Amino acid sequence: MSKKFEIPNPSSMPRFSGIRSFMRLPYQQEIDQKDFVILGAPFDTSASYRSGARFGPEAIRRSSVLLRPANVYHQIRPFDYLDGVDGGDVMVIPGNTLQSHQYITEHVKEWAKKGAVPIVLGGDHSISLPELRALSSVHGPLSLIHFDAHGDTWDEYWGEKYTHGTPFRRALEEGIINPSRSIQVGMRGTVYDPNDINEERELGFEVITSDEMRIIGLNETISRVRERVGNEKVFLTFDIDFLDPVYAPGTGTPEIADFTSAEAQHMLRQLSGLNFIGFDLVEVLPALDPSEVTALTAASIVFEFLSLLAVSKRDSNN
Amino acid sequence: MSKKFEIPNPSSMPRFSGIRSFMRLPYQQEIDQKDFVILGAPFDTSASYRSGARFGPEAIRRSSVLLRPANVYHQIRPFDYLDGVDGGDVMVIPGNTLQSHQYITEHVKEWAKKGAVPIVLGGDHSISLPELRALSSVHGPLSLIHFDAHGDTWDEYWGEKYTHGTPFRRALEEGIINPSRSIQVGMRGTVYDPNDINEERELGFEVITSDEMRIIGLNETISRVRERVGNEKVFLTFDIDFLDPVYAPGTGTPEIADFTSAEAQHMLRQLSGLNFIGFDLVEVLPALDPSEVTALTAASIVFEFLSLLAVSKRDSNN
Amino acid sequence: MSKKFEIPNPSSMPRFSGIRSFMRLPYQQEIDQKDFVILGAPFDTSASYRSGARFGPEAIRRSSVLLRPANVYHQIRPFDYLDGVDGGDVMVIPGNTLQSHQYITEHVKEWAKKGAVPIVLGGDHSISLPELRALSSVHGPLSLIHFDAHGDTWDEYWGEKYTHGTPFRRALEEGIINPSRSIQVGMRGTVYDPNDINEERELGFEVITSDEMRIIGLNETISRVRERVGNEKVFLTFDIDFLDPVYAPGTGTPEIADFTSAEAQHMLRQLSGLNFIGFDLVEVLPALDPSEVTALTAASIVFEFLSLLAVSKRDSNN
Amino acid sequence: MSKKFEIPNPSSMPRFSGIRSFMRLPYQQEIDQKDFVILGAPFDTSASYRSGARFGPEAIRRSSVLLRPANVYHQIRPFDYLDGVDGGDVMVIPGNTLQSHQYITEHVKEWAKKGAVPIVLGGDHSISLPELRALSSVHGPLSLIHFDAHGDTWDEYWGEKYTHGTPFRRALEEGIINPSRSIQVGMRGTVYDPNDINEERELGFEVITSDEMRIIGLNETISRVRERVGNEKVFLTFDIDFLDPVYAPGTGTPEIADFTSAEAQHMLRQLSGLNFIGFDLVEVLPALDPSEVTALTAASIVFEFLSLLAVSKRDSNN
Amino acid sequence: MSKKFEIPNPSSMPRFSGIRSFMRLPYQQEIDQKDFVILGAPFDTSASYRSGARFGPEAIRRSSVLLRPANVYHQIRPFDYLDGVDGGDVMVIPGNTLQSHQYITEHVKEWAKKGAVPIVLGGDHSISLPELRALSSVHGPLSLIHFDAHGDTWDEYWGEKYTHGTPFRRALEEGIINPSRSIQVGMRGTVYDPNDINEERELGFEVITSDEMRIIGLNETISRVRERVGNEKVFLTFDIDFLDPVYAPGTGTPEIADFTSAEAQHMLRQLSGLNFIGFDLVEVLPALDPSEVTALTAASIVFEFLSLLAVSKRDSNN
Amino acid sequence: MSKKFEIPNPSSMPRFSGIRSFMRLPYQQEIDQKDFVILGAPFDTSASYRSGARFGPEAIRRSSVLLRPANVYHQIRPFDYLDGVDGGDVMVIPGNTLQSHQYITEHVKEWAKKGAVPIVLGGDHSISLPELRALSSVHGPLSLIHFDAHGDTWDEYWGEKYTHGTPFRRALEEGIINPSRSIQVGMRGTVYDPNDINEERELGFEVITSDEMRIIGLNETISRVRERVGNEKVFLTFDIDFLDPVYAPGTGTPEIADFTSAEAQHMLRQLSGLNFIGFDLVEVLPALDPSEVTALTAASIVFEFLSLLAVSKRDSNN
Repeated sequence: MSKKFEIPNPSSMPRFSGIRSFMRLPYQQEIDQKDFVILGAPFDTSASYRSGARFGPEAIRRSSVLLRPANVYHQIRPFDYLDGVDGGDVMVIPGNTLQSHQYITEHVKEWAKKGAVPIVLGGDHSISLPELRALSSVHGPLSLIHFDAHGDTWDEYWGEKYTHGTPFRRALEEGIINPSRSIQVGMRGTVYDPNDINEERELGFEVITSDEMRIIGLNETISRVRERVGNEKVFLTFDIDFLDPVYAPGTGTPEIADFTSAEAQHMLRQLSGLNFIGFDLVEVLPALDPSEVTALTAASIVFEFLSLLAVSKRDSNN
Repeated sequence: MSKKFEIPNPSSMPRFSGIRSFMRLPYQQEIDQKDFVILGAPFDTSASYRSGARFGPEAIRRSSVLLRPANVYHQIRPFDYLDGVDGGDVMVIPGNTLQSHQYITEHVKEWAKKGAVPIVLGGDHSISLPELRALSSVHGPLSLIHFDAHGDTWDEYWGEKYTHGTPFRRALEEGIINPSRSIQVGMRGTVYDPNDINEERELGFEVITSDEMRIIGLNETISRVRERVGNEKVFLTFDIDFLDPVYAPGTGTPEIADFTSAEAQHMLRQLSGLNFIGFDLVEVLPALDPSEVTALTAASIVFEFLSLLAVSKRDSNN
Repeated sequence: MSKKFEIPNPSSMPRFSGIRSFMRLPYQQEIDQKDFVILGAPFDTSASYRSGARFGPEAIRRSSVLLRPANVYHQIRPFDYLDGVDGGDVMVIPGNTLQSHQYITEHVKEWAKKGAVPIVLGGDHSISLPELRALSSVHGPLSLIHFDAHGDTWDEYWGEKYTHGTPFRRALEEGIINPSRSIQVGMRGTVYDPNDINEERELGFEVITSDEMRIIGLNETISRVRERVGNEKVFLTFDIDFLDPVYAPGTGTPEIADFTSAEAQHMLRQLSGLNFIGFDLVEVLPALDPSEVTALTAASIVFEFLSLLAVSKRDSNN
Repeated sequence: MSKKFEIPNPSSMPRFSGIRSFMRLPYQQEIDQKDFVILGAPFDTSASYRSGARFGPEAIRRSSVLLRPANVYHQIRPFDYLDGVDGGDVMVIPGNTLQSHQYITEHVKEWAKKGAVPIVLGGDHSISLPELRALSSVHGPLSLIHFDAHGDTWDEYWGEKYTHGTPFRRALEEGIINPSRSIQVGMRGTVYDPNDINEERELGFEVITSDEMRIIGLNETISRVRERVGNEKVFLTFDIDFLDPVYAPGTGTPEIADFTSAEAQHMLRQLSGLNFIGFDLVEVLPALDPSEVTALTAASIVFEFLSLLAVSKRDSNN
Repeated sequence: MSKKFEIPNPSSMPRFSGIRSFMRLPYQQEIDQKDFVILGAPFDTSASYRSGARFGPEAIRRSSVLLRPANVYHQIRPFDYLDGVDGGDVMVIPGNTLQSHQYITEHVKEWAKKGAVPIVLGGDHSISLPELRALSSVHGPLSLIHFDAHGDTWDEYWGEKYTHGTPFRRALEEGIINPSRSIQVGMRGTVYDPNDINEERELGFEVITSDEMRIIGLNETISRVRERVGNEKVFLTFDIDFLDPVYAPGTGTPEIADFTSAEAQHMLRQLSGLNFIGFDLVEVLPALDPSEVTALTAASIVFEFLSLLAVSKRDSNN
Repeated sequence: MSKKFEIPNPSSMPRFSGIRSFMRLPYQQEIDQKDFVILGAPFDTSASYRSGARFGPEAIRRSSVLLRPANVYHQIRPFDYLDGVDGGDVMVIPGNTLQSHQYITEHVKEWAKKGAVPIVLGGDHSISLPELRALSSVHGPLSLIHFDAHGDTWDEYWGEKYTHGTPFRRALEEGIINPSRSIQVGMRGTVYDPNDINEERELGFEVITSDEMRIIGLNETISRVRERVGNEKVFLTFDIDFLDPVYAPGTGTPEIADFTSAEAQHMLRQLSGLNFIGFDLVEVLPALDPSEVTALTAASIVFEFLSLLAVSKRDSNN
């Protein structure tokens, strides 16, 4: 085991001290050879209901300092295996989706070309599209694991093609994700037409709705996810509204009834060994999060993803 | 299938636009032939602990605009089958319970006589009594399905007979509900005397406490509900404090420990085919609901009830 | 005096009752001959810091029900003289500024052509531009009275020409306002360059900064405003951040140090007799307004404007 | 100088310690010979807009522990001169105004008969009526000094005679206050009819509106108050909405534009030497007071009144 | 059955009335022969992340008034069997841990010597150490049941030996708890080293982590607890962060994922018959608890503990 | 004029982007030759009422990004003249005042020795003492300008010598400030003894109370400040509770009645040309600051101080 570096030790320097980079990781804007990079994408122009997710990256970083460096479940300290930084925020232009997406694509691509797994903090879900463009340009068409209450495969909103409700239909059309290796889990809530879920399936995705998950169970759900993506290069996107609004009140389009953060954590922990090349955590809207539960949960989920990366590194070293 | 009318399509006109009637239904105060009517009863004079539920109808309407028109579970768009309006608020007089109750009775009766199923947004739970008076005057003595943490069958509070803790004892005394066809579910929390639950049973109600529900399960609970009410004309009253205070923080007399909104939603969905003639959703208190979770959940429950009405209409058309 | 119509009398029907149109005015979407129309423009795509002003119109309507029908200062009940409605919200498309502005222009123009003074509730300040387009197309180039902490005459933000910081430069370029008859008051706060205020003056505006107002006084400020606009057709735009953030915490780009709501009210009351053809109240952001002070103040300012219209009507009748 | 007793010394026992009686005064429910008694009247049934003032007494007590024992302005430590207790809350019945008022009258009378000046924490403004009944039964018809944004002399609300908007008209009708020795200050805001203020004057009150106060100044206002009441036995009622909603966001019917807490404090301090026989501070509604500014200000105003009592005691001892 | 005394009956005197002692118990600072005493320890100097738990006792008392006197599960009214008081707050000195701990030890010991079971409301978890010192000096070395997300057996924080993360290691070192009769349940969350849990076990504690509890179930967990402590004199310490942050947002070092308040309540109810000699409920931080869910849950847990004491008294009487 | 460097241009990169260093200044922990350094001191152990100021530095940094680079009043862009960085937070140990103070002294001294003016964000007011120790060790005994509602010259709190209420008495005793060149302004609120202010004066300070400031005016107050400190090396300490709690709700020991942020800003702007060698802004407590007004005001005050430094640099260059 080669110790990569240390974040400030919470038992040496109080966790409430210091500039809020993610988990107080080194802050470094220059693009460089790293195992991972944390990036914020403070973009919320594409939100269909509440705006304000532009402050999501800040809130997640803020709550992340509460995290300690070891993951008991995986028996690992991720930063013993992973060398990474907080790369700050990607440039975005409020009100200009196309330009912002282009900035995101370019910036993420640069990091990916250096070998870093980008971990992007949203921002609204539209940002997944430019990330997928960047990563597929480096890695080829990607598998997608998508935790969300919504499929985000609508064709348009009010005539707009690029919104937080449409990124994965666009990605399919652009050929940057491989639907036969992609899966969406957790869909629920009211929709526009009873047939909406079927339409997602017709696009080629495997979809496991919240109702189906309650029948087959979480572990079976995860088995199907693992089977679907196999050893493909996979992008994991986690919309915080996958969680019940009680567990994630700070979000723009909440859907009641499922899931708890314990359930989300449990599922994520079963994903070790997959070939992750990117991740994002989107739709955190701090203005509706008075107790900071949403932001803390978001930070914890990012940490679970980091742990998965570290486990892969550890296991591949053996 | 005859399409009745459209609410504004959220994918055409943003959900955050427009006057907040319930789900942006047409707002119409004149009493008319409709399948249902949404009415607010902004009355909180009878609350025993926190006041403020007078702003409940506004908050539920406000959050309701987030809902989309289709219910996946029932595979239905309710407004394809139901013609209804938001009828605004019933006149009430703060501090004058008797007069307010009389206004509610009169107003609800007029709508019921036109064939509309009244869907009343509270307001404190005392409003169920005048609703039951109105509906029983049109339909005869009613079955009652009552979701709540409290039985609300105490005899009096501080000498007062008409409070939010007493409506169903009054309704029994007035002969407007039929206890042998009525059932209460979800009772829990501290009480005045260990025998309180037994007293409810002695009044003739079937009562399934929260503790009992945990033993027999939700589905068995619902079976008993369905068996109890059979094909009788039934009024469904849902006190938001049936939910755990985490799922409904905005309420006046919360009781910890049960239930989740997923559980409530699941149970309601099993009630299709019953002969509903009225519904209310009470005790939403927005001042304690900073993330609007309570209001959104309340709106979602109303939508589940609307879906039940629509399913009955659809099935009876076949 | 011809009594036009009544809003619901708060001493007859509680103010917390009913659908929240502005002051519980009749809600009417069809465009019609009226003295004024209240319109919401729930648009916040163009905000440079905090987003969320799309919920401004709702919040202002919500708080407006607290207002009673008479203005003591002017000794008038505005609705004794004015016939108007709440016309609901104008269609906007989140993320699409140009299209949204076009919708606003068209909708406002239709009302203006019917003779109504449009009173628009924002929304971010970018909406003034399409309003001015609409009104100038009906009335010709306009005088502008502009209460704000910012001049909003920057040329661009991040390369964008149409943001909430640029509408009045655009309006000048388009020739729809007459700078020699226009005046801006209240500018303060940090800027990009010490010369920023001079640039506004070079554009032709008269500018009275907050610092200057403290020297010359409020009454002299108003005298200059009245002198500047004379009898021209004038559009009044009031950015809620004209107020100290203590008086308007719910806004997107607050600037500390001035003004109180009493001062704003005092100044507005001195503007009677001007030839107003339009008004907007912008930048109310409810998520930062936990006690609803901002929304109540915004509603009160709209009421002051309505009173000015009524006073003109009364005086012209005599 | 005879030292009466000590409240817990904040520099000996932290202010955040202990049961929250007012300023940590001894808590004593038995009625007894005292100079003053603090009583809560947690009644909000008569509120016309927001309810929730029933939690006012608790909130004021909670914030009061922040106060230290000495008043620099008057150079006095009130509890060196005054012997008093926190007598807890008066019995009230939510929803039953008449019965609650009767309880208040009886309880206050008992304390007044023992020589205590009752200091009552509201609760809505309706409670002044039963207090005045109690005190006039002991002292005869009273002078009234009334700080408020509203005159509270409307005849009725929705047909109700006993609301928080009507107590002083009732008191006049009952002959328990002497209008020719009574004065109201601070009236402002929207009203039902432009003539409302004149009606108050026709009832016999002297009324100084907020607008008039801005012209004559605070000191002249106080001179008129002192002149009006002379040496009569006087009851001081302070509605927290006398303050600008920025200074008292936690209240039920706020009116923008005036006054600051510094102005209120300044005026109260000029009232030394009057013959006070009772006081109340009403309309604190904690649910809208997230930073506790309203409650702290209310507690501070009570302390100013206690200081006035102490000054009178000190000066009469010399 | 001997009726000990009555708390104010919520159906006679509204629950929102009166000084906030715990459940409106008599407030008595003099140390006396009682079955139990409620004490606040408003100390938060030792908190490692968020401070503010000094207001925990106040908040718990405030919410406790919502509780009614009977526990249905145990079919008991605790105050029929138990004679107790709210003894107010223990003296503490912010910033001086050693002195504060000494005050706590002395004060708790005096009550314990009189036979009272102290029920201490925190405050941060460091307060358990002085409580254990007090109780072991009266009862000898104690068994410990510890519900918490953290083991609180770290050796030091930033060089400090007495913090809220170290009390139980100190207690072991001091020999005041017997590890072979002590058990910790609920540990989860990120840690400093993957081995942290093992270290706790090496200290002699039985530890059941959250993950293990999910496998063995709540009832088996409780069986192990009961077996571990047997008939020993046992101190129960409940850190509110044992609960998922959704159920207890108001706390200083939340850990996501488990447990619900229903689960906590269920487990506590299975602990009847144990030989409890002390209890504390710690880490309630009201500033992050806008809906008061945390405080209400804390009060409810205290009530469950009181019920356990009463059940033992009842059963031993038979 | 030599342009030193640029902070990110808000009109090029949105202000809500990027890691939150103060005004997005470069973040640099290594001690170096600079004109100024921003340092956080997240210490709140010494607070006498509310704790939580440890999150003050984070909140001030967060709000500071709203500021634009130019100060119109002084016609200056401070970073055209000043080279500085955000140096992050000083190490502190919660609960250990002496050790924390030592860390602060050492860290501040190192920066001061490099010629940087330290600008320290608190934290509670106890941190001024170690700052003064550091600066006097470099510069000799200092003049003090102290804006505050409290003199903070009490001798002790609960026997403790080092609290947020005592730093300036300690500083006097240690001879590190020169009282004959020091002045305190703004004192008000309740105190322990009417003589408290005189005691401060007997210590040698000039004290101008809030009441006196209202009589002599702000400009005369500033004249006296300038006269008192002359050309001496002066440390400016600004306690945010100098402001009325309405302008700074997020603080631990608020005092009602004065001052506005406009008044504070005005006074600070009159202090140009003084020989400042250090500054701190203390007692910001974010948990009570829901609209972030306090933090924004604090950031703005820091910017005014930076402007004063820049003005001196500019003028000395000429």
